[in-house]
Amino acid sequence: MSAPKQIYIAIVGLGGVGKAFLYQLAFLRQRLSKQSPSIDLRLILARRSTKQLFSSNWEHLDTTTVASQLDKNGSPPPPFNETFGQLARAPGKVVLVDNTSDQGLASLYPMVLQRGISIVTPNKKAFSDKIDLWQAIFSSAANGTGSASNGYVFHESTVGAGLPVISSLKELVETGDEVTKIEGVFSGTMSFLFNSFQPLGGGGGKFAAEVKKAKELGYTEPDPRDDLNGLDVARKLTILARIAGLNVESPTSFPVQSLIPKELESCSSGDEFLEKLPQFDDQMDKIKEEASKEGKVVRFVGSIDVPSKQVKVGLEKFDASHPIAALKGSDNIINFYTKRYGSNPLIIQGAGAGGDVTAMGVTGDLIKVVRQLQ
Amino acid sequence: MSAPKQIYIAIVGLGGVGKAFLYQLAFLRQRLSKQSPSIDLRLILARRSTKQLFSSNWEHLDTTTVASQLDKNGSPPPPFNETFGQLARAPGKVVLVDNTSDQGLASLYPMVLQRGISIVTPNKKAFSDKIDLWQAIFSSAANGTGSASNGYVFHESTVGAGLPVISSLKELVETGDEVTKIEGVFSGTMSFLFNSFQPLGGGGGKFAAEVKKAKELGYTEPDPRDDLNGLDVARKLTILARIAGLNVESPTSFPVQSLIPKELESCSSGDEFLEKLPQFDDQMDKIKEEASKEGKVVRFVGSIDVPSKQVKVGLEKFDASHPIAALKGSDNIINFYTKRYGSNPLIIQGAGAGGDVTAMGVTGDLIKVVRQLQ
Repeated sequence: MSAPKQIYIAIVGLGGVGKAFLYQLAFLRQRLSKQSPSIDLRLILARRSTKQLFSSNWEHLDTTTVASQLDKNGSPPPPFNETFGQLARAPGKVVLVDNTSDQGLASLYPMVLQRGISIVTPNKKAFSDKIDLWQAIFSSAANGTGSASNGYVFHESTVGAGLPVISSLKELVETGDEVTKIEGVFSGTMSFLFNSFQPLGGGGGKFAAEVKKAKELGYTEPDPRDDLNGLDVARKLTILARIAGLNVESPTSFPVQSLIPKELESCSSGDEFLEKLPQFDDQMDKIKEEASKEGKVVRFVGSIDVPSKQVKVGLEKFDASHPIAALKGSDNIINFYTKRYGSNPLIIQGAGAGGDVTAMGVTGDLIKVVRQLQ
Repeated sequence: MSAPKQIYIAIVGLGGVGKAFLYQLAFLRQRLSKQSPSIDLRLILARRSTKQLFSSNWEHLDTTTVASQLDKNGSPPPPFNETFGQLARAPGKVVLVDNTSDQGLASLYPMVLQRGISIVTPNKKAFSDKIDLWQAIFSSAANGTGSASNGYVFHESTVGAGLPVISSLKELVETGDEVTKIEGVFSGTMSFLFNSFQPLGGGGGKFAAEVKKAKELGYTEPDPRDDLNGLDVARKLTILARIAGLNVESPTSFPVQSLIPKELESCSSGDEFLEKLPQFDDQMDKIKEEASKEGKVVRFVGSIDVPSKQVKVGLEKFDASHPIAALKGSDNIINFYTKRYGSNPLIIQGAGAGGDVTAMGVTGDLIKVVRQLQ
């Protein structure tokens, strides 16, 4: 048997997703050592905003201790360009695992790919920013139209975390199906909020109180306005629409309904916002009652109508029998309407947020890259 | 740019799935010619039970005319071994597309893979027969524990047609999630039958009449007993259980409820069976009423309890609010309960039968193989 082939892993970002990824990487290394001993995955770099740890002798950094090692022995991180220069000197292929939501790092992806470094990431910024960046990334990637010696890029966890949303849409497109419409609940926060505000059987609390509860349970961003403005959903829609073939210019180039009342846009803090939000409960109750009268419930959804090129994000009403109405907890649901699937869509449903499931999408992408590099 | 790399495609079986696959292959070739001109897919063999057409000069056979060419100019097919000998002499990598449900061909997979030929197929027989064959296949496959110079094998369409069932389960397993339970409706026929026999809102016809209707609409096998005996579902469960890590010996090694009444097992024809089935409508009505009294509906499901290693197929009752109860038409639904996904499962739902969606899974697998061979 030939000597094992090293593939070098560099991880940036060690928050909830990063730590869950390290755990899964350890599992993957163990599995490969039994089933595919010809592959040797080596973690050679860990970096967070204030520190960097680099294995200059290309030996594997222990996944279980790397986070504390980074804290103890890490150096101040050099500019990203310098880090990528270090990585490009590795004696084998390198995969960058970007577990941040850093726009600056995202803008460097084309250069990273051109240096032959592959990327797996849940970082939405890279794929939902201006279309120029999207085009630069995929014209650089080996699995786009870039040179075969460039890096590969995969980003399953940018939509629906570990749910097989992007891979399924790509397969529909690549095998020649006609996607007519994509519709779903793309935010765990919005899912939880509306499943509580207007549960299927009736009842539910005041909107402002439900927002407060969601924040207390950790379902929202530290500042809930970052969920309520709809931009997170708009970013996900931008990504899916582009894969479906629409040249969406940016996540602000189509109608996005913000649930932040106009009058509260000038609040100086999330706390001030939460304090004043109950003043607008009547407006939300009216929306709820209107839906209720029609036997429907209101949900915060995103939709893409492919033939008419219409993308939109906001509140919609759904019959109680619709799968979107029956969603539970903070689950996401994505409905793909296509020519092949006919009147009943292909549906994918489940947790669309959380460290473990997000990391799963990243690790799954890493497995795909490893297969390509093998 | 270097000369294009040829990958040679051999198709066996030209029924509904085979014809839909040819259409998708034409689409894929066109897309690759634009986006990845370095890959040249060439159809070099078409074979059905009575005829074979082989391109002895390794030139591409036209996908749009190959079926009629086969009828007109095909020769009597030699034994499979001889055909594989022809294929093994191709001046490049070969992918066998087995669109049959031929047990004999399935038993040759290990040898095919060892000859360096990859396989993509919706043929359940190969993966749901005795565990020995499963082990022989994956110990021969390059994406199993076989030599890297052997062929790859993918079989997404053996469960849920083009729905991403097998790839999703594999990703859960490969990234270290613990799958605790898999439960779902795995047969389009059974789905249609029970959605009609006991629809969610109440009503529905007599069981025998619904079977007859399903047959007339083309939802059953020519002999509906081939659906009602539960073996098709048992085969699918066998495949999923094995991927989840259970050494299921065969599709008859666990409890499978047949909906063919004992008294009708000796019927000499499907027609005789259909004629006598109404005598047993009372039994089915009783089951329906019992479920109804509990506010439930009855569905024909398969389930795998991984920790206790229990696999079973048969009738179960579900609350109206359960996603399995709310299924429509002839859709399949598969629920993956895992440690990461917690109380709400990962759900995949949609058409699980039909030429176009089955072929989609096969074409998607072909794309995976092409990426590996690239």
